[in-house]
Amino acid sequence: MENYSESMPIDSGGRKGVSNPVERLIFGRNPVLEAIGAGRVIHKIVLPRQAQNRTKSTDVLHTIKQRALQAGIPVEYVNTGELDELTQGQNHQGVVALVEPFSYTEFDLLMESLGKSKVPLVILLDHWQDPQNLGSLLRSAEAAGVDGIILPKRRSVGVNATVAKVAAGALEYVKIVQVTNLVRTIEALKERGLWIAGASANASQVYFQADFTMPLGLVIGSEGTGLSRLVEEHCDFLTRIPMKGQISSLNAAVSAALLIFEVIRQRQFG
Amino acid sequence: MENYSESMPIDSGGRKGVSNPVERLIFGRNPVLEAIGAGRVIHKIVLPRQAQNRTKSTDVLHTIKQRALQAGIPVEYVNTGELDELTQGQNHQGVVALVEPFSYTEFDLLMESLGKSKVPLVILLDHWQDPQNLGSLLRSAEAAGVDGIILPKRRSVGVNATVAKVAAGALEYVKIVQVTNLVRTIEALKERGLWIAGASANASQVYFQADFTMPLGLVIGSEGTGLSRLVEEHCDFLTRIPMKGQISSLNAAVSAALLIFEVIRQRQFG
Repeated sequence: MENYSESMPIDSGGRKGVSNPVERLIFGRNPVLEAIGAGRVIHKIVLPRQAQNRTKSTDVLHTIKQRALQAGIPVEYVNTGELDELTQGQNHQGVVALVEPFSYTEFDLLMESLGKSKVPLVILLDHWQDPQNLGSLLRSAEAAGVDGIILPKRRSVGVNATVAKVAAGALEYVKIVQVTNLVRTIEALKERGLWIAGASANASQVYFQADFTMPLGLVIGSEGTGLSRLVEEHCDFLTRIPMKGQISSLNAAVSAALLIFEVIRQRQFG
Repeated sequence: MENYSESMPIDSGGRKGVSNPVERLIFGRNPVLEAIGAGRVIHKIVLPRQAQNRTKSTDVLHTIKQRALQAGIPVEYVNTGELDELTQGQNHQGVVALVEPFSYTEFDLLMESLGKSKVPLVILLDHWQDPQNLGSLLRSAEAAGVDGIILPKRRSVGVNATVAKVAAGALEYVKIVQVTNLVRTIEALKERGLWIAGASANASQVYFQADFTMPLGLVIGSEGTGLSRLVEEHCDFLTRIPMKGQISSLNAAVSAALLIFEVIRQRQFG
């Protein structure tokens, strides 16, 4: 893989203004297949040398090779060690794609798209830190058909290669918006006619008993710290997930999935 | 850390009959605190040298040190690199506990405990492979107060250090049973009066519309392969999670959580 670092700067060298190199990679078989299928701008797909001679139609790496060919995406063959290096030891399943950095949806575009939604459902993440959780949430949100995800620009995890991997392709189909100020965004959504519900252990009302049939923004706090005081104060109502164990804390992505599918239940099967 | 490998064989050297060394470790702050609190047999707690001089009551490593002292658990101080080695580079948050290998609950004991449960709820995992998913499920199951988790001995992930970490302490409070044959176990549960529901994309009935108010065993397949044919055939009924996205697959641990909390909803708030 000669001149790799010249043709595609994957090492930012810590320079200011250069995005995290990992944001330019998608790895894992399903995530890469989904990225090709969704028409994502892919500069190059990197496969291990052994994949060059694979011709079985049941072989996923062969399938990726063919799809890349059809889509006009260059394929490069390297030693497996180089894939390990590229992904910093993460499980790449023999395939890495070098892509345009993830492009977030503009807030105005999301607002516009809500007009096409029967009953809008938007998820707001109050400063989540864990890429595993963000990836998991994207997958659940995509499966449930939510209109969009909103997360803060600062002090929050953004979309990176781990998120893409865990999201298992969902990244390509969910609108994700980065905002500067979550409270101002909440107010804008209220003006647009959405009710804002916050998930909080302090809520008196259990989420099964809340009414989620109106246009809704669901705010979910980060694990550990929950909703920030200011965000909680700007919610129209709070709701909690009932727990009866000794630990009494759920994973943030699981909490979000429970709330999202309760919205679906009430709206479609209630 | 002299004679470490003599006093506590953490490297099995690949010998037959010696359990995976990682099963003897619990790491991460909350998991270790929970293990101490739950009275788990801990041979030793390993902390970084810097933690030796910490005395602030707000410092979690200091708290762990004190709890260990109170519980009569030896504490050893090592270089951070040794913690990294012990946990094979996983995020230990500065603390590792060397514990008795996890002891599963006997099936008969679980069956006995069902007598004390108002309406039994048992979760069966059809050959899950991913420790992240098992850990996440344990956490949700504990929060929901399920009676027990049943998983196969072979071709299935078991409880290891990653599971314990992701479970965030829940491991200490959930009964986990290993069985040789999942189908025979299903039949035994039926004889005990439980209905067996399987999560399957083939089901005609959406899970919101299923009846989960009777004593129940919920079978959840592994991601990718789902329920095995034989297991599916032995279920009393099948149920599916409705999806309207492009990807149409949920994470196995998220699916399990959705089903578990729907059971709770129907039984307590239905």
